[in-house]
Amino acid sequence: MKQIRLNLDPHLKSNRKPGNKELRITDGERGYSYRTLFFDYLQGVKKVTIEDSFIRHHYQIINFLRFCELCAIADTVKDINLVTTTVDCALEKKQFQEDKLNEIVESLLECEINLSIEFSNTLHDRRIELDNGWVITLGRGLDIYKPLEHWFKIGANELDLRRCHETTIVFHRAK
Amino acid sequence: MKQIRLNLDPHLKSNRKPGNKELRITDGERGYSYRTLFFDYLQGVKKVTIEDSFIRHHYQIINFLRFCELCAIADTVKDINLVTTTVDCALEKKQFQEDKLNEIVESLLECEINLSIEFSNTLHDRRIELDNGWVITLGRGLDIYKPLEHWFKIGANELDLRRCHETTIVFHRAK
Repeated sequence: MKQIRLNLDPHLKSNRKPGNKELRITDGERGYSYRTLFFDYLQGVKKVTIEDSFIRHHYQIINFLRFCELCAIADTVKDINLVTTTVDCALEKKQFQEDKLNEIVESLLECEINLSIEFSNTLHDRRIELDNGWVITLGRGLDIYKPLEHWFKIGANELDLRRCHETTIVFHRAK
Repeated sequence: MKQIRLNLDPHLKSNRKPGNKELRITDGERGYSYRTLFFDYLQGVKKVTIEDSFIRHHYQIINFLRFCELCAIADTVKDINLVTTTVDCALEKKQFQEDKLNEIVESLLECEINLSIEFSNTLHDRRIELDNGWVITLGRGLDIYKPLEHWFKIGANELDLRRCHETTIVFHRAK
């Protein structure tokens, strides 16, 4: 399998220091792509554990894929562990979730990143744990963006331009 | 209409100086999002003129939308002028091109950017002219990315991770 050799532009490497903060996003605000939110905290990280109870609908899986793409760009990440809940109702939806997550697993191998998926029946909260000591607690998980009426609109691709739901994200050091 | 107040993160502002260069992208290479390619050159730009003869198929219009999103992020752009060719065959395709471009026009107004569209019958070459003196000549226009087999793959959203076609892009100062 041909590996990715990214040779990323230096301006993609962040110079900012991550810090403890409580970020309160107001309803309809913009300027919060995953890159803007998380990139500084991912520097030097090898393992990412993300707990998000709802990664099952098409748009939720795409959000998760976007988060994985950010990990690939961060360049040092080798393992992503997703803990989520399985779909308990329709078999068809359960299959969709499994198929799409497996497609992402396969695609990440090309970037030399292992994605493991764990299903829980009891998970509710949403958090991201990084092996450099940072923990990010997300009230709504990755599901912070408002949908668009159609896909030929500013913000369709560039999440810094997409309106957000009201939510709070806390960045703190693990004890 | 509610305007965008972006309040962009400082790390989105580039500190690099744009320079004259001929960039030769080899077949299958990655690391060339529009942001990586053009962002430095857009600093302080108010007016962008883009000539690209093929902005008509779904993916070409999405590429153009992505370029417009970059202009919105660059924050100073007020006018984008697209010169392209019209679809001369099927009426239905012509209507699709018009409809989708109009949706982008409308959406850009929210960012206080005017998009004007000019149709030419003779245009072939691809270039971007910026009112800060930079001209970017693109062998393939915005159409530099290889398609993916499906959309749950790394590189679906993040163009720095997408493989490129072989092409050359020249950045030079207008006389």
